[in-house]
Amino acid sequence: MLSKNQLKHIRKLSKKKHRQEMGLFVAEGEKVVRELLDSGWKADEIYATHAPQDIPYTPIEQSLLNSISHLNTASPILAVFRIPKYDQTPTIGKHFSVALDNIADPGNLGTIIRLCDWFGIKDIFCSPNTVDCFNPKVVQSTMGSIARVQCHYTDLVSLVDHSETEVYAATLDGNSHYQQTFSSKGLLVMGSESHGIGDELLKKIRNRVTIPALSKDAGPESLNVANATAILLNEIFRP
Amino acid sequence: MLSKNQLKHIRKLSKKKHRQEMGLFVAEGEKVVRELLDSGWKADEIYATHAPQDIPYTPIEQSLLNSISHLNTASPILAVFRIPKYDQTPTIGKHFSVALDNIADPGNLGTIIRLCDWFGIKDIFCSPNTVDCFNPKVVQSTMGSIARVQCHYTDLVSLVDHSETEVYAATLDGNSHYQQTFSSKGLLVMGSESHGIGDELLKKIRNRVTIPALSKDAGPESLNVANATAILLNEIFRP
Repeated sequence: MLSKNQLKHIRKLSKKKHRQEMGLFVAEGEKVVRELLDSGWKADEIYATHAPQDIPYTPIEQSLLNSISHLNTASPILAVFRIPKYDQTPTIGKHFSVALDNIADPGNLGTIIRLCDWFGIKDIFCSPNTVDCFNPKVVQSTMGSIARVQCHYTDLVSLVDHSETEVYAATLDGNSHYQQTFSSKGLLVMGSESHGIGDELLKKIRNRVTIPALSKDAGPESLNVANATAILLNEIFRP
Repeated sequence: MLSKNQLKHIRKLSKKKHRQEMGLFVAEGEKVVRELLDSGWKADEIYATHAPQDIPYTPIEQSLLNSISHLNTASPILAVFRIPKYDQTPTIGKHFSVALDNIADPGNLGTIIRLCDWFGIKDIFCSPNTVDCFNPKVVQSTMGSIARVQCHYTDLVSLVDHSETEVYAATLDGNSHYQQTFSSKGLLVMGSESHGIGDELLKKIRNRVTIPALSKDAGPESLNVANATAILLNEIFRP
Protein backbone atom coordinates (compact mmCIF):
# COMPACT_ATOMS: atom_id res chain seq x y z
CA MET A 1 0.00 0.00 0.00
CA LEU A 2 0.96 3.60 -0.51
CA SER A 3 0.67 6.08 2.35
CA LYS A 4 -1.05 9.40 1.79
CA ASN A 5 2.35 11.09 1.96
CA GLN A 6 3.79 8.80 -0.72
CA LEU A 7 0.82 9.47 -2.96
CA LYS A 8 1.23 13.21 -2.51
CA HIS A 9 4.97 12.97 -3.11
CA ILE A 10 4.55 11.13 -6.42
CA ARG A 11 1.84 13.48 -7.63
CA LYS A 12 4.04 16.47 -6.85
CA LEU A 13 6.72 15.09 -9.20
CA SER A 14 4.63 16.56 -12.03
CA LYS A 15 6.20 19.90 -10.99
CA LYS A 16 9.72 20.72 -12.14
CA LYS A 17 10.51 22.50 -8.85
CA HIS A 18 9.64 19.40 -6.84
CA ARG A 19 11.59 17.11 -9.20
CA GLN A 20 14.66 19.31 -8.82
CA GLU A 21 14.35 19.52 -5.04
CA MET A 22 13.93 15.76 -4.71
CA GLY A 23 16.26 14.75 -7.55
CA LEU A 24 13.55 12.36 -8.75
CA PHE A 25 11.29 11.92 -11.76
CA VAL A 26 8.50 9.62 -12.87
CA ALA A 27 8.60 7.21 -15.83
CA GLU A 28 5.53 5.28 -16.94
CA GLY A 29 5.01 2.26 -19.16
CA GLU A 30 6.94 -1.00 -19.43
CA LYS A 31 9.02 0.05 -22.41
CA VAL A 32 10.34 3.27 -20.91
CA VAL A 33 10.90 1.77 -17.44
CA ARG A 34 12.73 -1.22 -18.89
CA GLU A 35 15.01 0.92 -21.08
CA LEU A 36 15.96 3.08 -18.10
CA LEU A 37 16.67 0.02 -15.93
CA ASP A 38 18.65 -1.61 -18.74
CA SER A 39 20.73 1.57 -19.04
CA GLY A 40 21.61 1.37 -15.35
CA TRP A 41 19.34 4.16 -14.08
CA LYS A 42 18.30 3.76 -10.45
CA ALA A 43 14.62 3.36 -9.61
CA ASP A 44 13.61 4.28 -6.07
CA GLU A 45 10.22 2.62 -6.43
CA ILE A 46 8.34 0.71 -9.11
CA TYR A 47 4.57 0.38 -8.77
CA ALA A 48 2.53 -1.82 -11.06
CA THR A 49 -0.72 -3.68 -11.39
CA HIS A 50 1.29 -6.40 -13.12
CA ALA A 51 4.73 -6.54 -14.73
CA PRO A 52 7.08 -9.09 -16.30
CA GLN A 53 8.97 -11.29 -13.83
CA ASP A 54 12.34 -9.54 -14.24
CA ILE A 55 11.01 -6.15 -13.11
CA PRO A 56 10.80 -6.02 -9.30
CA TYR A 57 7.74 -4.02 -8.26
CA THR A 58 5.29 -3.14 -5.52
CA PRO A 59 1.84 -4.35 -6.59
CA ILE A 60 -0.90 -1.73 -6.41
CA GLU A 61 -4.45 -1.54 -7.67
CA GLN A 62 -5.42 0.06 -10.96
CA SER A 63 -7.43 2.81 -9.26
CA LEU A 64 -4.43 3.80 -7.15
CA LEU A 65 -2.16 3.70 -10.20
CA ASN A 66 -4.60 5.96 -12.05
CA SER A 67 -4.46 8.40 -9.17
CA ILE A 68 -0.65 8.71 -9.24
CA SER A 69 -0.26 8.58 -13.02
CA HIS A 70 0.74 11.83 -14.73
CA LEU A 71 -0.64 10.70 -18.08
CA ASN A 72 -4.18 10.88 -19.43
CA THR A 73 -4.23 7.09 -19.66
CA ALA A 74 -2.23 5.30 -16.97
CA SER A 75 0.16 2.50 -17.96
CA PRO A 76 0.34 -0.67 -15.83
CA ILE A 77 3.79 0.38 -14.54
CA LEU A 78 4.96 3.61 -12.92
CA ALA A 79 8.47 4.08 -11.54
CA VAL A 80 10.18 6.82 -9.59
CA PHE A 81 13.76 7.22 -10.83
CA ARG A 82 16.65 9.31 -9.58
CA ILE A 83 17.67 12.14 -11.91
CA PRO A 84 21.18 11.19 -13.07
CA LYS A 85 24.20 13.40 -12.61
CA TYR A 86 25.96 13.62 -15.96
CA ASP A 87 29.67 13.42 -15.21
CA GLN A 88 31.07 15.24 -18.20
CA THR A 89 30.57 18.76 -19.44
CA PRO A 90 29.40 18.31 -23.01
CA THR A 91 31.40 19.98 -25.72
CA ILE A 92 30.03 21.07 -29.04
CA GLY A 93 32.02 20.61 -32.22
CA LYS A 94 33.04 17.02 -31.44
CA HIS A 95 29.92 15.47 -32.94
CA PHE A 96 26.84 16.99 -34.49
CA SER A 97 24.49 18.38 -31.85
CA VAL A 98 21.12 20.05 -31.57
CA ALA A 99 20.03 23.13 -29.59
CA LEU A 100 16.41 23.90 -28.73
CA ASP A 101 15.23 27.43 -28.01
CA ASN A 102 11.96 27.76 -26.11
CA ILE A 103 10.37 24.42 -26.99
CA ALA A 104 7.36 24.32 -24.68
CA ASP A 105 5.42 21.24 -25.77
CA PRO A 106 6.46 18.06 -23.88
CA GLY A 107 5.50 15.77 -26.78
CA ASN A 108 7.70 17.75 -29.16
CA LEU A 109 10.73 17.62 -26.86
CA GLY A 110 10.16 13.89 -26.29
CA THR A 111 10.02 13.02 -29.97
CA ILE A 112 13.05 15.24 -30.70
CA ILE A 113 15.01 13.29 -28.05
CA ARG A 114 13.90 10.05 -29.73
CA LEU A 115 14.90 11.46 -33.15
CA CYS A 116 18.34 12.47 -31.87
CA ASP A 117 18.77 8.96 -30.47
CA TRP A 118 17.89 7.54 -33.90
CA PHE A 119 20.56 9.66 -35.57
CA GLY A 120 23.14 8.87 -32.88
CA ILE A 121 23.18 12.38 -31.37
CA LYS A 122 24.11 12.25 -27.69
CA ASP A 123 23.71 15.86 -26.54
CA ILE A 124 20.88 18.36 -26.81
CA PHE A 125 21.37 21.92 -25.54
CA CYS A 126 18.14 23.48 -24.28
CA SER A 127 17.37 27.10 -23.43
CA PRO A 128 16.24 27.44 -19.79
CA ASN A 129 12.66 28.16 -20.99
CA THR A 130 12.47 24.86 -22.86
CA VAL A 131 10.28 22.28 -21.10
CA ASP A 132 12.14 20.10 -18.57
CA CYS A 133 13.28 16.79 -20.05
CA PHE A 134 12.16 14.97 -16.88
CA ASN A 135 8.58 16.17 -17.26
CA PRO A 136 6.52 12.93 -17.21
CA LYS A 137 5.06 13.56 -20.68
CA VAL A 138 8.50 14.20 -22.15
CA VAL A 139 9.87 11.01 -20.58
CA GLN A 140 6.88 9.08 -21.95
CA SER A 141 7.20 10.37 -25.49
CA THR A 142 10.94 9.65 -25.67
CA MET A 143 9.91 5.96 -25.61
CA GLY A 144 13.09 5.21 -23.64
CA SER A 145 15.52 7.41 -25.59
CA ILE A 146 15.89 9.65 -22.52
CA ALA A 147 18.20 6.89 -21.27
CA ARG A 148 20.68 7.56 -24.09
CA VAL A 149 20.41 11.28 -24.94
CA GLN A 150 21.42 14.00 -22.48
CA CYS A 151 19.64 17.37 -22.29
CA HIS A 152 21.78 20.25 -21.04
CA TYR A 153 19.94 23.42 -19.96
CA THR A 154 22.11 26.42 -20.66
CA ASP A 155 22.19 29.94 -22.07
CA LEU A 156 22.20 29.34 -25.83
CA VAL A 157 23.41 32.85 -26.71
CA SER A 158 26.59 32.29 -24.75
CA LEU A 159 26.89 28.72 -26.08
CA VAL A 160 26.77 29.91 -29.69
CA ASP A 161 29.03 32.86 -28.88
CA HIS A 162 31.76 30.56 -27.60
CA SER A 163 31.28 27.90 -30.23
CA GLU A 164 33.92 27.41 -32.91
CA THR A 165 31.81 25.05 -34.95
CA GLU A 166 29.34 25.85 -37.74
CA VAL A 167 25.92 26.78 -36.38
CA TYR A 168 22.70 26.44 -38.42
CA ALA A 169 19.41 28.12 -37.55
CA ALA A 170 16.12 26.70 -38.84
CA THR A 171 14.10 29.72 -39.99
CA LEU A 172 11.35 30.50 -42.49
CA ASP A 173 13.56 32.82 -44.60
CA GLY A 174 16.81 30.90 -45.09
CA ASN A 175 18.38 28.89 -47.89
CA SER A 176 16.67 25.71 -48.99
CA HIS A 177 17.93 22.83 -46.85
CA TYR A 178 18.21 20.78 -50.04
CA GLN A 179 21.04 23.08 -51.16
CA GLN A 180 22.75 23.55 -47.80
CA THR A 181 25.93 21.67 -46.97
CA PHE A 182 26.29 20.82 -43.31
CA SER A 183 29.44 20.31 -41.26
CA SER A 184 29.42 16.88 -39.64
CA LYS A 185 30.39 18.52 -36.34
CA GLY A 186 27.95 21.43 -36.46
CA LEU A 187 25.12 22.59 -34.26
CA LEU A 188 21.49 22.86 -35.44
CA VAL A 189 19.32 25.40 -33.58
CA MET A 190 15.54 24.94 -33.62
CA GLY A 191 13.08 27.50 -32.23
CA SER A 192 9.48 27.38 -31.16
CA GLU A 193 6.74 27.11 -33.79
CA SER A 194 4.97 30.23 -32.63
CA HIS A 195 7.92 32.48 -31.83
CA GLY A 196 10.85 31.03 -33.79
CA ILE A 197 14.39 31.43 -32.47
CA GLY A 198 14.84 34.35 -30.05
CA ASP A 199 16.19 37.56 -31.69
CA GLU A 200 19.35 37.80 -29.64
CA LEU A 201 20.28 34.21 -30.44
CA LEU A 202 19.31 34.43 -34.10
CA LYS A 203 21.54 37.49 -34.60
CA LYS A 204 24.55 35.32 -33.76
CA ILE A 205 23.87 32.73 -36.46
CA ARG A 206 24.88 33.25 -40.09
CA ASN A 207 23.67 29.98 -41.66
CA ARG A 208 19.89 29.99 -41.95
CA VAL A 209 18.11 27.03 -43.46
CA THR A 210 14.51 26.60 -44.51
CA ILE A 211 12.43 23.62 -45.57
CA PRO A 212 10.66 25.05 -48.64
CA ALA A 213 6.88 24.67 -48.62
CA LEU A 214 5.48 23.06 -51.76
CA SER A 215 1.83 23.84 -51.14
CA LYS A 216 0.43 26.27 -53.67
CA ASP A 217 -1.75 29.25 -52.66
CA ALA A 218 -2.49 29.23 -48.96
CA GLY A 219 -0.71 26.60 -46.92
CA PRO A 220 0.42 26.06 -43.36
CA GLU A 221 2.60 28.77 -41.84
CA SER A 222 5.07 26.33 -40.40
CA LEU A 223 5.80 22.69 -39.75
CA ASN A 224 5.58 21.00 -36.37
CA VAL A 225 9.01 21.56 -34.77
CA ALA A 226 9.72 17.85 -34.30
CA ASN A 227 8.86 17.15 -37.94
CA ALA A 228 11.09 20.02 -39.08
CA THR A 229 13.92 18.64 -36.92
CA ALA A 230 13.38 15.19 -38.45
CA ILE A 231 13.67 16.58 -41.98
CA LEU A 232 16.79 18.61 -41.22
CA LEU A 233 18.59 15.79 -39.38
CA ASN A 234 17.79 13.52 -42.31
CA GLU A 235 19.61 16.00 -44.59
CA ILE A 236 22.49 16.53 -42.19
CA PHE A 237 23.16 12.79 -41.89
CA ARG A 238 22.67 12.08 -45.59
CA PRO A 239 25.50 9.65 -46.47
CA MET B 1 -26.13 31.44 -22.64
CA LEU B 2 -25.97 27.78 -23.48
CA SER B 3 -28.82 25.49 -22.49
CA LYS B 4 -28.08 22.20 -20.76
CA ASN B 5 -28.97 20.39 -23.96
CA GLN B 6 -26.56 22.47 -26.03
CA LEU B 7 -23.77 21.82 -23.52
CA LYS B 8 -24.43 18.10 -23.65
CA HIS B 9 -24.61 18.16 -27.44
CA ILE B 10 -21.20 19.87 -27.79
CA ARG B 11 -19.57 17.58 -25.25
CA LYS B 12 -20.87 14.53 -27.11
CA LEU B 13 -19.06 15.69 -30.27
CA SER B 14 -15.94 14.18 -28.72
CA LYS B 15 -17.40 10.82 -29.87
CA LYS B 16 -17.03 9.80 -33.52
CA LYS B 17 -20.46 8.18 -33.54
CA HIS B 18 -22.13 11.38 -32.44
CA ARG B 19 -20.13 13.46 -34.93
CA GLN B 20 -21.21 11.19 -37.75
CA GLU B 21 -24.85 11.15 -36.69
CA MET B 22 -24.97 14.92 -36.40
CA GLY B 23 -22.60 15.72 -39.28
CA LEU B 24 -20.78 18.15 -36.99
CA PHE B 25 -17.36 18.55 -35.40
CA VAL B 26 -15.61 20.91 -33.01
CA ALA B 27 -12.65 23.16 -33.82
CA GLU B 28 -10.87 25.16 -31.13
CA GLY B 29 -8.47 28.08 -31.22
CA GLU B 30 -8.48 31.25 -33.31
CA LYS B 31 -6.02 29.99 -35.91
CA VAL B 32 -7.88 26.79 -36.73
CA VAL B 33 -11.33 28.43 -36.66
CA ARG B 34 -10.16 31.26 -38.90
CA GLU B 35 -8.55 28.94 -41.46
CA LEU B 36 -11.74 26.87 -41.67
CA LEU B 37 -13.90 30.00 -42.09
CA ASP B 38 -11.48 31.42 -44.69
CA SER B 39 -11.73 28.15 -46.62
CA GLY B 40 -15.51 28.49 -46.75
CA TRP B 41 -16.40 25.86 -44.13
CA LYS B 42 -19.74 26.46 -42.43
CA ALA B 43 -19.80 27.06 -38.66
CA ASP B 44 -23.11 26.35 -36.92
CA GLU B 45 -21.99 28.14 -33.77
CA ILE B 46 -18.92 29.99 -32.56
CA TYR B 47 -18.49 30.47 -28.82
CA ALA B 48 -15.74 32.65 -27.38
CA THR B 49 -14.70 34.63 -24.36
CA HIS B 50 -13.30 37.17 -26.82
CA ALA B 51 -12.41 37.11 -30.50
CA PRO B 52 -11.24 39.47 -33.24
CA GLN B 53 -13.96 41.70 -34.72
CA ASP B 54 -14.31 39.81 -37.99
CA ILE B 55 -15.27 36.52 -36.31
CA PRO B 56 -18.97 36.59 -35.33
CA TYR B 57 -19.45 34.77 -32.03
CA THR B 58 -21.68 34.14 -29.05
CA PRO B 59 -19.88 35.43 -25.94
CA ILE B 60 -19.60 32.92 -23.10
CA GLU B 61 -17.68 32.82 -19.86
CA GLN B 62 -14.32 31.11 -19.48
CA SER B 63 -15.69 28.52 -17.04
CA LEU B 64 -18.40 27.52 -19.52
CA LEU B 65 -15.87 27.39 -22.34
CA ASN B 66 -13.65 25.14 -20.22
CA SER B 67 -16.60 22.84 -19.66
CA ILE B 68 -17.30 22.36 -23.40
CA SER B 69 -13.66 22.29 -24.53
CA HIS B 70 -12.32 18.93 -25.69
CA LEU B 71 -8.72 19.95 -25.07
CA ASN B 72 -6.70 19.86 -21.85
CA THR B 73 -6.31 23.63 -22.04
CA ALA B 74 -9.28 25.46 -23.55
CA SER B 75 -8.68 28.11 -26.21
CA PRO B 76 -10.68 31.36 -26.12
CA ILE B 77 -12.68 30.24 -29.20
CA LEU B 78 -14.63 27.05 -29.85
CA ALA B 79 -16.69 26.51 -33.00
CA VAL B 80 -19.05 23.78 -34.13
CA PHE B 81 -18.57 23.18 -37.86
CA ARG B 82 -20.46 21.04 -40.34
CA ILE B 83 -18.51 18.06 -41.65
CA PRO B 84 -18.05 18.82 -45.37
CA LYS B 85 -19.17 16.51 -48.12
CA TYR B 86 -16.27 16.06 -50.51
CA ASP B 87 -17.76 16.14 -53.99
CA GLN B 88 -15.18 14.13 -55.84
CA THR B 89 -14.00 10.57 -55.47
CA PRO B 90 -10.25 10.91 -55.04
CA THR B 91 -8.04 9.07 -57.46
CA ILE B 92 -4.57 7.87 -56.72
CA GLY B 93 -1.84 8.10 -59.32
CA LYS B 94 -2.68 11.67 -60.36
CA HIS B 95 -0.51 13.28 -57.68
CA PHE B 96 1.57 11.78 -54.90
CA SER B 97 -0.60 10.62 -52.00
CA VAL B 98 -0.27 9.09 -48.56
CA ALA B 99 -2.11 6.16 -46.96
CA LEU B 100 -2.25 5.57 -43.20
CA ASP B 101 -2.86 2.13 -41.73
CA ASN B 102 -4.07 2.02 -38.14
CA ILE B 103 -2.75 5.38 -36.91
CA ALA B 104 -4.41 5.71 -33.51
CA ASP B 105 -2.83 8.81 -32.00
CA PRO B 106 -4.76 12.04 -32.78
CA GLY B 107 -1.64 14.22 -32.54
CA ASN B 108 0.16 12.05 -35.07
CA LEU B 109 -2.69 12.16 -37.58
CA GLY B 110 -2.99 15.92 -37.09
CA THR B 111 0.68 16.63 -37.73
CA ILE B 112 0.70 14.26 -40.74
CA ILE B 113 -2.22 16.26 -42.21
CA ARG B 114 -0.21 19.45 -41.62
CA LEU B 115 2.87 17.85 -43.22
CA CYS B 116 0.89 16.76 -46.28
CA ASP B 117 -0.42 20.31 -46.60
CA TRP B 118 3.16 21.60 -46.48
CA PHE B 119 4.17 19.30 -49.33
CA GLY B 120 1.04 20.10 -51.36
CA ILE B 121 -0.58 16.67 -50.91
CA LYS B 122 -4.36 16.96 -51.11
CA ASP B 123 -5.55 13.41 -50.30
CA ILE B 124 -4.81 11.03 -47.46
CA PHE B 125 -6.29 7.52 -47.51
CA CYS B 126 -6.94 6.14 -44.03
CA SER B 127 -7.76 2.60 -42.93
CA PRO B 128 -11.10 2.47 -41.09
CA ASN B 129 -9.24 1.84 -37.78
CA THR B 130 -7.23 5.06 -38.13
CA VAL B 131 -8.42 7.80 -35.76
CA ASP B 132 -11.19 10.02 -37.18
CA CYS B 133 -9.83 13.21 -38.76
CA PHE B 134 -12.64 15.23 -37.12
CA ASN B 135 -11.59 14.15 -33.63
CA PRO B 136 -11.08 17.48 -31.76
CA LYS B 137 -7.42 16.74 -31.00
CA VAL B 138 -6.71 15.88 -34.64
CA VAL B 139 -8.40 19.09 -35.81
CA GLN B 140 -6.39 21.07 -33.26
CA SER B 141 -3.03 19.61 -34.22
CA THR B 142 -3.57 20.17 -37.96
CA MET B 143 -3.31 23.90 -37.10
CA GLY B 144 -5.83 24.60 -39.86
CA SER B 145 -4.49 22.22 -42.52
CA ILE B 146 -7.66 20.12 -42.16
CA ALA B 147 -9.24 22.84 -44.31
CA ARG B 148 -7.00 21.93 -47.25
CA VAL B 149 -6.25 18.21 -46.98
CA GLN B 150 -8.98 15.57 -47.34
CA CYS B 151 -8.93 12.28 -45.41
CA HIS B 152 -10.71 9.38 -47.10
CA TYR B 153 -11.52 6.35 -44.93
CA THR B 154 -11.39 3.23 -47.06
CA ASP B 155 -10.16 -0.35 -47.24
CA LEU B 156 -6.46 0.07 -48.03
CA VAL B 157 -5.99 -3.53 -49.22
CA SER B 158 -8.52 -3.01 -51.97
CA LEU B 159 -7.14 0.49 -52.70
CA VAL B 160 -3.63 -0.86 -53.24
CA ASP B 161 -5.01 -3.86 -55.16
CA HIS B 162 -6.71 -1.61 -57.68
CA SER B 163 -3.93 0.95 -57.86
CA GLU B 164 -1.82 1.19 -60.99
CA THR B 165 0.70 3.54 -59.45
CA GLU B 166 3.89 2.70 -57.55
CA VAL B 167 3.22 1.96 -53.90
CA TYR B 168 5.85 2.33 -51.17
CA ALA B 169 5.61 0.83 -47.69
CA ALA B 170 7.61 2.30 -44.80
CA THR B 171 9.02 -0.69 -42.91
CA LEU B 172 11.98 -1.48 -40.69
CA ASP B 173 13.52 -3.97 -43.15
CA GLY B 174 13.42 -2.23 -46.52
CA ASN B 175 15.92 -0.40 -48.71
CA SER B 176 17.46 2.79 -47.41
CA HIS B 177 15.23 5.71 -48.36
CA TYR B 178 18.37 7.60 -49.37
CA GLN B 179 18.82 5.14 -52.24
CA GLN B 180 15.17 4.75 -53.22
CA THR B 181 13.80 6.54 -56.27
CA PHE B 182 10.17 7.56 -55.94
CA SER B 183 7.54 8.03 -58.63
CA SER B 184 6.09 11.54 -58.46
CA LYS B 185 2.60 10.04 -58.66
CA GLY B 186 3.09 7.22 -56.18
CA LEU B 187 1.47 6.27 -52.90
CA LEU B 188 3.34 6.08 -49.57
CA VAL B 189 1.86 3.74 -46.95
CA MET B 190 2.67 4.34 -43.27
CA GLY B 191 1.70 1.94 -40.48
CA SER B 192 1.37 2.26 -36.73
CA GLU B 193 4.51 2.50 -34.59
CA SER B 194 3.62 -0.49 -32.48
CA HIS B 195 2.14 -2.81 -35.10
CA GLY B 196 3.52 -1.55 -38.42
CA ILE B 197 1.52 -2.03 -41.61
CA GLY B 198 -1.04 -4.85 -41.44
CA ASP B 199 0.15 -8.18 -42.93
CA GLU B 200 -2.50 -8.46 -45.59
CA LEU B 201 -1.76 -4.95 -46.84
CA LEU B 202 2.01 -5.30 -46.62
CA LYS B 203 1.94 -8.46 -48.75
CA LYS B 204 0.58 -6.38 -51.63
CA ILE B 205 3.46 -3.89 -51.63
CA ARG B 206 6.80 -4.62 -53.32
CA ASN B 207 8.71 -1.38 -52.59
CA ARG B 208 9.76 -1.28 -48.95
CA VAL B 209 11.71 1.68 -47.65
CA THR B 210 13.48 2.21 -44.36
CA ILE B 211 15.06 5.20 -42.68
CA PRO B 212 18.35 3.70 -41.49
CA ALA B 213 19.11 4.23 -37.80
CA LEU B 214 22.54 5.73 -37.14
CA SER B 215 22.62 5.10 -33.41
CA LYS B 216 25.26 2.61 -32.41
CA ASP B 217 24.60 -0.22 -29.94
CA ALA B 218 21.12 0.00 -28.50
CA GLY B 219 18.90 2.66 -29.94
CA PRO B 220 15.21 3.33 -30.37
CA GLU B 221 13.18 0.62 -32.07
CA SER B 222 11.37 3.03 -34.33
CA LEU B 223 10.73 6.67 -35.08
CA ASN B 224 7.54 8.51 -34.28
CA VAL B 225 5.26 7.92 -37.30
CA ALA B 226 4.80 11.62 -38.06
CA ASN B 227 8.57 12.17 -37.99
CA ALA B 228 9.11 9.17 -40.26
CA THR B 229 6.48 10.52 -42.67
CA ALA B 230 8.23 13.92 -42.60
CA ILE B 231 11.57 12.36 -43.52
CA LEU B 232 10.12 10.24 -46.33
CA LEU B 233 8.07 13.07 -47.85
CA ASN B 234 11.18 15.24 -47.78
CA GLU B 235 12.95 12.59 -49.88
CA ILE B 236 10.00 12.05 -52.20
CA PHE B 237 9.70 15.78 -52.97
CA ARG B 238 13.46 16.32 -53.28
CA PRO B 239 13.84 18.60 -56.33
